[in-house]
Amino acid sequence: MISFESDYNNGCHEAILKRLTETNDESATGYGLDNYCTAAKEKTRTACGKPEADVFFLVGGTQTNATVIDAMLQSYQGVLSVETGHINVHESGAIEFGGHKVLALPSHDGKMDAGELAQWLQDFYADPTYDHMVFPGIVYITQATEMGTVYTLAELTSISEVCKRYELPLFIDGARLGYGLMAEGSDVSLQQLADLCDVFYIGGTKCGAFCGEAVVFPHHNAPAHFFTIVKQHGALMAKGRLLGIQFDTLMQDGLYFKLASHAVEQAMRLRDAFIAKGYKMYSNSPTNQQFVLLDKATIEHLEKDFVFEQWYPVGELMNCRFVTSWATRPEDVDALIAAL
Amino acid sequence: MISFESDYNNGCHEAILKRLTETNDESATGYGLDNYCTAAKEKTRTACGKPEADVFFLVGGTQTNATVIDAMLQSYQGVLSVETGHINVHESGAIEFGGHKVLALPSHDGKMDAGELAQWLQDFYADPTYDHMVFPGIVYITQATEMGTVYTLAELTSISEVCKRYELPLFIDGARLGYGLMAEGSDVSLQQLADLCDVFYIGGTKCGAFCGEAVVFPHHNAPAHFFTIVKQHGALMAKGRLLGIQFDTLMQDGLYFKLASHAVEQAMRLRDAFIAKGYKMYSNSPTNQQFVLLDKATIEHLEKDFVFEQWYPVGELMNCRFVTSWATRPEDVDALIAAL
Amino acid sequence: MISFESDYNNGCHEAILKRLTETNDESATGYGLDNYCTAAKEKTRTACGKPEADVFFLVGGTQTNATVIDAMLQSYQGVLSVETGHINVHESGAIEFGGHKVLALPSHDGKMDAGELAQWLQDFYADPTYDHMVFPGIVYITQATEMGTVYTLAELTSISEVCKRYELPLFIDGARLGYGLMAEGSDVSLQQLADLCDVFYIGGTKCGAFCGEAVVFPHHNAPAHFFTIVKQHGALMAKGRLLGIQFDTLMQDGLYFKLASHAVEQAMRLRDAFIAKGYKMYSNSPTNQQFVLLDKATIEHLEKDFVFEQWYPVGELMNCRFVTSWATRPEDVDALIAAL
Amino acid sequence: MISFESDYNNGCHEAILKRLTETNDESATGYGLDNYCTAAKEKTRTACGKPEADVFFLVGGTQTNATVIDAMLQSYQGVLSVETGHINVHESGAIEFGGHKVLALPSHDGKMDAGELAQWLQDFYADPTYDHMVFPGIVYITQATEMGTVYTLAELTSISEVCKRYELPLFIDGARLGYGLMAEGSDVSLQQLADLCDVFYIGGTKCGAFCGEAVVFPHHNAPAHFFTIVKQHGALMAKGRLLGIQFDTLMQDGLYFKLASHAVEQAMRLRDAFIAKGYKMYSNSPTNQQFVLLDKATIEHLEKDFVFEQWYPVGELMNCRFVTSWATRPEDVDALIAAL
Repeated sequence: MISFESDYNNGCHEAILKRLTETNDESATGYGLDNYCTAAKEKTRTACGKPEADVFFLVGGTQTNATVIDAMLQSYQGVLSVETGHINVHESGAIEFGGHKVLALPSHDGKMDAGELAQWLQDFYADPTYDHMVFPGIVYITQATEMGTVYTLAELTSISEVCKRYELPLFIDGARLGYGLMAEGSDVSLQQLADLCDVFYIGGTKCGAFCGEAVVFPHHNAPAHFFTIVKQHGALMAKGRLLGIQFDTLMQDGLYFKLASHAVEQAMRLRDAFIAKGYKMYSNSPTNQQFVLLDKATIEHLEKDFVFEQWYPVGELMNCRFVTSWATRPEDVDALIAAL
Repeated sequence: MISFESDYNNGCHEAILKRLTETNDESATGYGLDNYCTAAKEKTRTACGKPEADVFFLVGGTQTNATVIDAMLQSYQGVLSVETGHINVHESGAIEFGGHKVLALPSHDGKMDAGELAQWLQDFYADPTYDHMVFPGIVYITQATEMGTVYTLAELTSISEVCKRYELPLFIDGARLGYGLMAEGSDVSLQQLADLCDVFYIGGTKCGAFCGEAVVFPHHNAPAHFFTIVKQHGALMAKGRLLGIQFDTLMQDGLYFKLASHAVEQAMRLRDAFIAKGYKMYSNSPTNQQFVLLDKATIEHLEKDFVFEQWYPVGELMNCRFVTSWATRPEDVDALIAAL
Repeated sequence: MISFESDYNNGCHEAILKRLTETNDESATGYGLDNYCTAAKEKTRTACGKPEADVFFLVGGTQTNATVIDAMLQSYQGVLSVETGHINVHESGAIEFGGHKVLALPSHDGKMDAGELAQWLQDFYADPTYDHMVFPGIVYITQATEMGTVYTLAELTSISEVCKRYELPLFIDGARLGYGLMAEGSDVSLQQLADLCDVFYIGGTKCGAFCGEAVVFPHHNAPAHFFTIVKQHGALMAKGRLLGIQFDTLMQDGLYFKLASHAVEQAMRLRDAFIAKGYKMYSNSPTNQQFVLLDKATIEHLEKDFVFEQWYPVGELMNCRFVTSWATRPEDVDALIAAL
Repeated sequence: MISFESDYNNGCHEAILKRLTETNDESATGYGLDNYCTAAKEKTRTACGKPEADVFFLVGGTQTNATVIDAMLQSYQGVLSVETGHINVHESGAIEFGGHKVLALPSHDGKMDAGELAQWLQDFYADPTYDHMVFPGIVYITQATEMGTVYTLAELTSISEVCKRYELPLFIDGARLGYGLMAEGSDVSLQQLADLCDVFYIGGTKCGAFCGEAVVFPHHNAPAHFFTIVKQHGALMAKGRLLGIQFDTLMQDGLYFKLASHAVEQAMRLRDAFIAKGYKMYSNSPTNQQFVLLDKATIEHLEKDFVFEQWYPVGELMNCRFVTSWATRPEDVDALIAAL
């Protein structure tokens, strides 16, 4: 079976495995205070063009979202997200576990609209009863989104401007940041993204690492005692070296971006083949997640040799997801295309 | 520099690294639903002599404590622990973050006394105002303790009996379970420990793994929807295979216990040398953590070549901790002994 | 100025004031364990036709909602409510403060549709990823709703049946229960409502009392240690007598229902006058809250002598709320009608 | 039966009842925005000598403690309290429900020692692992204490100085503030107390009111959006007038202090009689709570005519509590003295 099930199905990139092996016998202090983490943070800052950035390594996405959002909010504040945002759907209420409401805005193929955000905020403060409501405290968006779409530089800039106007920090969930930055036609650089937001993370789990998300506060603006908040959330890895070594490797010579590019390239081949063969795409995704509408017969045919997810029915058809990753082999894409 | 700083200073055991490398290109589904996890769970059940046990793999200790305790408690209940318990001191309030109070009992070199526990419970229910107080909901102990001590079978049995009398589940934090079970003179087997408690974990991070704690509900008694609770706590690893592969290796042919035995052996050599050379031990630890009282001159002398922690002053002397691990080389212990 | 601003603008009904005065010098034990509370609970059980019901008196609505919902839910569960539900809008995130998500369904003039509820639940369990989501744990509806509308017996029965099918408790927020039961054309009795749900409350604050909500678990089904949970939420009144005396008075000889009937009667007079004079009602409310669309000139004219709330613009007009209560004087309604 | 059971056994002072009756038919806006609250706040500020103070009225003590402490703390911080502090014992974990740990110091008849506080803080920051611990975020003391004792001006000043040195706000739980200020030999004025702390409350429930605690941030230093935080905690009373009218009455012409003085006077008569008749006092309390050691025969004799609480055995004797209040009649004290 060839898998297009997700981008976290394989181990880690071979360069990481090599580094883990080479460094295995070295002794290092715990909790991210080791030299590997120090080096990885420095490389991350350089990649972001933010020499003053605060960088922390956490293990996984839900954990990172919950920890960052809780750290940035006051108790009476909630987080603005589109309805389809990961924090609003697939994190088992981790945000609410921390005491905060997710304030949901409409989703446009996974994206938030700056105008709708501005309107929501204007309406909130125009409501004479807002003191009885949950205050907006942070804006959460994902790049790339859960639907595979990406924000353009203009869109990100507009959202960032609304946030600034209302003094709301902007948080970009980058569980798939690599695939977002390397998306076909993307006009957003890592440096620009770092400029436009207050905190974001570079997702390792879905792009080459065993685990790990690099949280970046680009303007040296980490909340006070963020280390302790991470610990309180059970998110502090004892052997921080495991995260440090992985990110030190991924951030070396742009490996992270090369891996993402590879995945996007394979996804584009797949998309073009779907379209060429007359299938209808559910959305126009320039990233490593492709959503296509398939009929029952096609699904049954493909399932003999390929693994992929069926999301939900759209009329008579099924919206199916095919995901490529840093580990996807071109010959496997060839095989899938041939089977269409 | 030779390090006796902690038991999580090295990478992972070479057998794990080998397995990670061998399996790296295989595709596996996420969230612990992969075949490696399945195999590791089966081996864990066998080692515990509990074929019906529910087993889950989490990443780290604080996370595991917070998740398990929160899952086992009702909202109006707290957790009984000795004052020096890890959850009461060094977890940044992770238990309270989940809404629960730590109800502290006296510590006897890190251990809870069954008689004192029984007395506390008797006093609680004798207090006519107990409806205004936090109810006891679970008992938390560590094996081995933070002070390197271990419970005997008789002690564990007594605590277990008190728990049963008051219908309180017993939770054993096993971040250093290997070292506890393999402690000099230990009379507790893994099977007996599993019999006597309601939930415990087998700590991987401090005994051979990069990360990972195997949570065992020995009597098929995991709380409903524990998977979702783990996710809600941000403790569900996307690439669960990383944990599965590690525990599958550690549980193979008793590797976990061999690694722990090695560390204890080295620690005993060190302890004997301390005593032979006239140093006073702070506590009588039969495990991989040794606490010895050193004067300033000795500390300065040793610090030239060795890394170890100074915990706190005891009179004119300093209580210093030396920790061995699965990775400690006998020749490094020789060197330290020679330097005394 | 004559006020139609809200139903909690006046003190309390004179019968309550009389009882408070008569009993003031008597000594009574605290925390709701006094004789007044005992008597009030008994009268409440009788009124509900539920001799086995568990009854508790809390102070206010938000507090009651937060305490009851938190007590009924497991940590991984959320509460289903319509979008306009009080808990989802005007409680400053009190539910999320307790760690739970509000799962929002569409609102139909403030009411939940049983069919939509059933569909939501079917979709939830049909989603293969539901283990990563917040589980539904309780259904919350209000009678009368925030929009002044009421559920018919058929509607309540349908919702109750869906709840039973999915083993979900049904919670009815009765902050305005009196006005709901006495609504024009209402076909739901208190006994029927008690039969159909698992917990509800009889709102005192908005119907004759200074403060107080009587929480009823009609089937002797209060969660274990609910008293302690109330205390933990800061919702246990020291001088419980203040609540007991008020409800003992309100439940005596049907006073509560008489007060509610009076308010509804005055509201119906007002509604009929609005309609007769050609104004357009925003919704068809058979209860003490009337929503009418007024133009700017009319608003300015009425504001000279009357207090009422402007909710939000509807096209060129403003949706204005006029509320009657147990304390509304017929002559004040006459005056308003005359001014139209 | 004559009750010395507690200071919240009676209704309210007759002046309050009179005001409630007089104002009952007046219409007032909700949530504490009414004129009674405005007037009561102004009188409270004047009494404290703090014209700039922020004043809020909440319903009860546990609620107030939980709301204020949660509002003042960051998520990674806990509250320092003596072991016997109300928040650490008799609030069912309300502080932990809000996510915060109670960091317990030794109790000296209910009082915190400034030197021990300073030492605790010094030790905390000297511990190299403090980043893994709960940070101290606020200091909580009670005046008068749960044991009936009071802080002298020198003691309060010392504690306040330690707090300032470590930039920790000082919170004084004044559930029995009146009795503390009017204690025999007290050298602390309300103005001085307001000067020395960052937030405190004037307890109404135990001193003349049906309910109500006046929270004072003396230096115009209420946390941002405290109104919303109060609502989020379910602590915002809809008919705030009930609290406003009560405090407006209590703060008028020093009524609050007169009521407290009366209670202390009766308690001193009782204490002197106990001592004169050879009984041993458990503690030396200058306030309205008296603790005396009684034997079984005496208890049985007194219980025929008097209600009082037995706290816990001290050797062969029982520590019994007798409480006077604003409502205690001198003839009832006479009767008790005669029965000794």
